[in-house]
Amino acid sequence: MRKSVKVFAPATVANVVCGFDVLGFAVNEPGDEVIMRLTDKPGVSLLKITGDEGRLPLNPDKNTVSAIAKQYLEHIGRPDAGIEIELHKKMPIGSGLGSSSASTVAGLFAINTLFDNQLTNRELVPFAMKGEELACGYGHADNVAPALLGGFVLIRSYSPLDIISLPFPQDLHAAIVYPEVDVPTKDARQMIRSKVYLKDAVTQWGNVAGLVSGLFMNDYDLIGRSMTDILVEPTRSILIPDFEILRALAMESGAIGFGISGSGPSVFALTKDAETANRITQKLQHHLKNIAINSLAFVSEVNKKGPVILD
Amino acid sequence: MRKSVKVFAPATVANVVCGFDVLGFAVNEPGDEVIMRLTDKPGVSLLKITGDEGRLPLNPDKNTVSAIAKQYLEHIGRPDAGIEIELHKKMPIGSGLGSSSASTVAGLFAINTLFDNQLTNRELVPFAMKGEELACGYGHADNVAPALLGGFVLIRSYSPLDIISLPFPQDLHAAIVYPEVDVPTKDARQMIRSKVYLKDAVTQWGNVAGLVSGLFMNDYDLIGRSMTDILVEPTRSILIPDFEILRALAMESGAIGFGISGSGPSVFALTKDAETANRITQKLQHHLKNIAINSLAFVSEVNKKGPVILD
Repeated sequence: MRKSVKVFAPATVANVVCGFDVLGFAVNEPGDEVIMRLTDKPGVSLLKITGDEGRLPLNPDKNTVSAIAKQYLEHIGRPDAGIEIELHKKMPIGSGLGSSSASTVAGLFAINTLFDNQLTNRELVPFAMKGEELACGYGHADNVAPALLGGFVLIRSYSPLDIISLPFPQDLHAAIVYPEVDVPTKDARQMIRSKVYLKDAVTQWGNVAGLVSGLFMNDYDLIGRSMTDILVEPTRSILIPDFEILRALAMESGAIGFGISGSGPSVFALTKDAETANRITQKLQHHLKNIAINSLAFVSEVNKKGPVILD
Repeated sequence: MRKSVKVFAPATVANVVCGFDVLGFAVNEPGDEVIMRLTDKPGVSLLKITGDEGRLPLNPDKNTVSAIAKQYLEHIGRPDAGIEIELHKKMPIGSGLGSSSASTVAGLFAINTLFDNQLTNRELVPFAMKGEELACGYGHADNVAPALLGGFVLIRSYSPLDIISLPFPQDLHAAIVYPEVDVPTKDARQMIRSKVYLKDAVTQWGNVAGLVSGLFMNDYDLIGRSMTDILVEPTRSILIPDFEILRALAMESGAIGFGISGSGPSVFALTKDAETANRITQKLQHHLKNIAINSLAFVSEVNKKGPVILD
C-alpha cells in the first residue's frame, strides 16, 4: 500500500455551448496537483496551498479537497485515518475552467489511490459534486464528471445521477483563452433567467442532440453547427470583454465552434488540430492585449485519461 | 416516363417523448396511399378521397396533397401540367400518428416520381412542411422528415432547416394504440405553456441527449431511461383516458419506454421485439375496452424505407 501520492487532475470545459449543465469535456492542460500522505496522526490536515494567491480557505472543513477527503474516509469506514494534503493550484481560480473541480478530483483520486481504489472513478462523482457545492454553492457534475472520467461526458440526469461517456473525434483540440477579469460562478448563475420560452428550449435541445450526434458521427461540421446557445450565452457573454469580436476572430481562424467555457470568463474554440488551435489563441490574446486585458492561453487535445498519478 | 403511380407513405411517431418538435420516427404501418396520374387537362384535380369519413376538404387548394402538388409543379417550372389525384386514407385522422404528413408525403413522392425524381426526398421536406402548415397551422418537420426519409430523424434546426438521420437498434419495434377520442393538434399545442423553467428544460435536454446517445450505442436501457418528458406530457396526457394506467401496463409488459405519439391521443411503446409489442397492444386495448373506449392498434418495426411505390 502506497504511503503517499501526487496526482494531477485536468481542467474541464463545461456546457460546451448548448449543453448547459449536461455536457463537459476535459483537457490535458491546465489542471491542479494534489500531494497526499498517510500519517499516524488521525484527522485530515491541509498543510499548504500554492498558486492560489491566498484566495482559497486553509480551514480543512472549508477547503473542498480536505472536506471531501473527510467524507471519503467516513464513507469507507476510516474516519480515524491520518492524512496530510498539499494543494498546488496550477490553473486560474474563477476562470470558468473547473478550477474547484480539478482540485477536488485530484484530491479524491489521490485518497482513493491511498485506500486501494475502493471506489471506481465513476463512483467518486457524487463525492466530487459535494465539493462543487461547497466551492460554488451548486453541486453540478459537468466539470467533475469529465475531470474524473476524461473525454466528453453527458450528465443525462441528476436525479438519479446518470453519466454517459461520449465518443469524440480523436483529433479534436481545444483552444482556451482566459481573459483575466473576475466572473464568480455564483454571480454568473444568478444572472441567468429562471424561465425561458419553450420554443427557445426546443432550439436548444435540437442543438444538444445535434452536438451529441456530431460527436458520435465524427462530423466536425455538425458539431460546429450545433455549438450555438440562445439561452445562457446572451446573458453570460456580457461579462466577457469583446466576446463577439473574440468569436469572429476564432471562427475566421478556422474554429469549428466557439463559446464560453463554463460560466466564463474563459472562452474556448474547438478545432481539428493543434496548429489551428494555436493560431486562434494567438489571435485572441493579441486582441485582448490591444484592449489592455491580460490573458492566459491553453491548447490541448481532448483529455483521454482523467486524473493521473505523477509520483 | 411513368404516366401514373401509386405510393404508400408511413405514419410517424413525433417527439418520441422527450424530443418535442425535434425527434420522430416512421413505422411500417399504418400509412396512406396516393394514386396520381398525368392527364392532358392542365391543373391539379382531386378526384376522390376514401377512408376519411368526409372529414378532409375536396377543394384542391385546401387539401394538402393537391395544394402541395401545385407548389411542387410551380417549383419545377411546370405549373401547366395536368394531374389527377386519388387519396386513400388508410389511417385515422387526428390520431397523433402524422396522418396529414402521411398523405402529403405520399403525394409529394408520387408527383416527384412522375416528374423524374427532380428532387431528393430530403429536398421534399420543406414542401411537406408547408402541407403541415396547411393541415394543422404549424409547419413542423418531426412527422414529414421521418415519413420522407424513414428511420429515426433529428430536426437539429428549423432555421436553417437541418435534418439528421439517426441510427437505431435494428430490432427496435413500436407498439401503437390509438384510443378513439378526439384531440385536434391545434388544441393540443395551445394547451402547452409558452414558458418553462430553465431547470426543467435542462432535465429535458439531458434526456434528449441521452435518447440520441442510446440510439447510437444500441443501448435499449439508455433509450428507455431517457424517454421521460416533464414539460409537455403532463399537460397533453390529461386528454388521454387512463394515461398513467396505460403506461404502467406497457412498462410491466416489457416496454423499453412509453409515451404520447405526437400530440396524441395515440400512445406508443418501444420494444426489443414484435412479440412484446403485440403483448402490449393487447393489454392496452383490453384496458381501453373495459372503460368503453374503442381503439386501434399497430405493431411495427421502425420503418427503414420511407415512402414506397406500390404500383
